[in-house]
Parts: sequence; C-alpha cells; structure tokens
Amino acid sequence: MIRLVIIGSGNVAQHLIQAFQKSLVQVVARHPETLHSLPISCPVVTSMNEIADAEVYVLAVSDHAIAALGHEIPGTGKLVVHTSGATGMHVLPKHHRSGVLYPLQTFTKGKPLDYSTIPFCLEADKKEDYLLLEQLARTVSSAIFSIDEQQRLALHLAAVFVCNFTNHLYQLGADLCAEHGVSFEVLKPLILETAAKVQTLTPTQAQTGPALRGDTATLERHQSMLTQPYPKEIYQLLTQSIIDHVQKL
Amino acid sequence: MIRLVIIGSGNVAQHLIQAFQKSLVQVVARHPETLHSLPISCPVVTSMNEIADAEVYVLAVSDHAIAALGHEIPGTGKLVVHTSGATGMHVLPKHHRSGVLYPLQTFTKGKPLDYSTIPFCLEADKKEDYLLLEQLARTVSSAIFSIDEQQRLALHLAAVFVCNFTNHLYQLGADLCAEHGVSFEVLKPLILETAAKVQTLTPTQAQTGPALRGDTATLERHQSMLTQPYPKEIYQLLTQSIIDHVQKL
Repeated sequence: MIRLVIIGSGNVAQHLIQAFQKSLVQVVARHPETLHSLPISCPVVTSMNEIADAEVYVLAVSDHAIAALGHEIPGTGKLVVHTSGATGMHVLPKHHRSGVLYPLQTFTKGKPLDYSTIPFCLEADKKEDYLLLEQLARTVSSAIFSIDEQQRLALHLAAVFVCNFTNHLYQLGADLCAEHGVSFEVLKPLILETAAKVQTLTPTQAQTGPALRGDTATLERHQSMLTQPYPKEIYQLLTQSIIDHVQKL
Repeated sequence: MIRLVIIGSGNVAQHLIQAFQKSLVQVVARHPETLHSLPISCPVVTSMNEIADAEVYVLAVSDHAIAALGHEIPGTGKLVVHTSGATGMHVLPKHHRSGVLYPLQTFTKGKPLDYSTIPFCLEADKKEDYLLLEQLARTVSSAIFSIDEQQRLALHLAAVFVCNFTNHLYQLGADLCAEHGVSFEVLKPLILETAAKVQTLTPTQAQTGPALRGDTATLERHQSMLTQPYPKEIYQLLTQSIIDHVQKL
C-alpha cells in the first residue's frame, strides 16, 4: 500500500477520504467536525505541524489555498499533488515533487458515488511519480487518464458544458413544468436516457429534435411559448448552434 | 386484454409495437420492411383498407399525417389516439372518440429501452376513454400522467431543453475534447452522474460550478479558451442565466 495523507475537509476531500480509505494514514482538516459522519480509521489532525510521514500528500482544498498549504508540508522531495482541474502544477512548492490527481466528477455532499468508475486525470513532473499516482488511483478506479495541463483545463471547461450547463437546462425544464402545473417527475426518465445514449453513441449520432430536423413550425411554436427572456434566448442560440453543427458535418 | 391496432412503422411505432406486444392484434405499416427485425406475433398489413376491429387505434405517425390517416379508420365511435407531444386532439376525426397517448422518451432505433419506466402522458375527450387508455398504458409502465394539451405542449418544449439541447452540450464537450486530444470517455461518468443527481435532488439543489459560485476568475479563463463563436456565446448566455436564476431564489 502507498501511504497517503489527505489535506482538506470539503466536498472533494470527503469523497477522496472515502475512496482512498485503505491507503490513508492521516487526514489533516482545519474543520474536522465536517468529517464526523465519515468512516475514517486513521488519525485526523487539525494542524499542518502534526502532519505524518507519507509517500503521497493530496491537497484536496480550494484552488486559492493550494500554494500556501503546499509550502507547509515539511521536508523536501515529497510527492505533493493537488486535485484541481483549473490549476497548474507550478503552484506547488518547488522543493517537493509535483503532481495532479484530478477526479473528474460532480461530488455531492452525502450522496454515495461508485468510485470505481470515477475518471482520475493524472499528471506528474517525473515519470516514476506518474506511475506512483497511477498505482494509487488504480486501487480505487479503473478509469485512469494521463492528462497534461492544457488538456485538464479543457476538460474542466468541457465539464461546465456537460454538467453545470446541462443541470441548468434541467432547471429550465423544471421551471416550464412548474409554470404549467406538471410534475418534473415526467421528465426524469428522459433525462436519464439522454445521458445513457451518449455512453454508446456519439453526441452527433444521438442528436434528435426540431432543430436537427429543420422543423420550422415546431421551432416557431416553441419560441412563442417562451415568455421569459433567458429561456427564449437560450432556445434560439442552442437551436442556431445545432443547425450550424449539422451544416458543418 | 384491450385489443390494440398500431398504425405506423417509424421509430416511435417500432418501440410501441415492442412495448404493447401483448395487446396488439394488428400493425398497419406502409413500409413493413422496416419492421422485419422486430418480434411481432400479430398480422402486419400495408393498407388502411385491411384494418382489423379493435378497441384502441394508435396513430404512431408523423404529426402531419395524423389527420389524414385518422379519417381512414373505418366505422364510427372508435377510440383513435395519436402519440404526438406537439399536436392537439382536435386533428383527430370527430366521428370517432379522441385521445392522446404520448410516450415522453427519446427513442433510438435499435437501442433497447426499459418500457416499464416510460412516462405515458394521457388525454381523452371522455372520462371512460381516459380510464381505458390508463388501463392500456399500465400493462407497460407504472409512470402514467394525466396531461392536457397545454401541459403536453409545455412538456414537449421542456423535452427540447433537457434532451435535445442537453445532447448538444454533450456535443460541445466532445468537440472540446477532440480539439485538445482528450478522449470523450473521460466525460461519460460525469454526464451520467449529472443526470442521476436530479433524480433525487431538485436542479436548484444539484447546481454547481463557477457561475453559481460567482467565480469570476474561472469564468474569464474559460471564456478566453473558447475560440469558436457558438460555444463562446452559449457559455456567456448560460452563465448569465444561472446567475439570474440564483438572484431570483
């Protein structure tokens, strides 16, 4: 087993603590009370001064806190990694070895996740450190990807499209349901199946709807039903983008 | 068993034929060759003149073909229903009884579906016909909803947001992956989990991301990475819409 210390007590830290239980020798948490419901079998300390000796230190903290906390890790030549999709390795302290262990998933407090399918996007300065991170990640998941900084930033941006923006489209669908006295339950199987389709088909193969068909009558009726400015503009822009995409195929 | 005739051979017809196999006494299909791979145990005829006697006639055809084919159903006082989310009952022939059986799902040719979870949105002119449609739909699914015309049109529009537009966001995510040499596989678990979250949380509870957090630095970096006009405009508009939604909470 690779001896692991996780620094952090937020949402991502809580999930990584559960996922990496077997490797964990210590958790460093400024707010240990947020961890009380987790099954942690290793010591939890509150100060970086009490940090244990380990092979890998994982900084699962806010982007802006990575650099300062990294510098508090004692000694030299330790493998120190962060978990941020939006941050380069260069913010990590130069007297340690650097890497990134970015779990690309949407983490919800208290909602269990199947960690074995979580994609771990790995990067390290040194080849042997990459292999160490890979060995560590493989104890949890079989979805391991070698991702450099530019790719990681692109994935972080793509995740906004397929997760944050997608959830907002669910919100607009829920708003339409509420406006017309329909239960959002009716849309839930469609939401699941839409996500399931692109697991085996490409998004191009999976695309359906009036914009793709060039069904002008339906497009016009839909737009006339939208009275609020944002959903109306979103309808028009996404329709145009689908049409533009089809024309480029 | 309610004796059922399905008219149609397209995508929706093919799925309804499979779902309602046990009730089916006949299929009327202008293009029966498209059905050759389906396990159909009832007769398939090609002409409306050969139509069998049944309790319910389901017109699973294109919106524009509903009215004309409805008028070809012989006799009077039969229960004739269409399956369109975008069409009113008034297009059905007045000398028959009218109803709607709208399965709200994205149907993909050849992709198996769990029909037991498909929401059936039902409407009928007469209470007893609604109950008959409900009895019929219950042989397939436990998700039955009484939905009037305005509600059905709203659901049809909401489905464009949560299915067609969502799939286009998957497309934009896949495009970003392709542009940066990353496999779209990395995003697939996130796509599934995003859809899974709103099965138990509301979209408001499930929302995450830089727009919600007001994380201006990330929003600006993301926009600077988008070089194509459509994804950039979509990023800006959906970000603004999320911010607008938060402010109204």
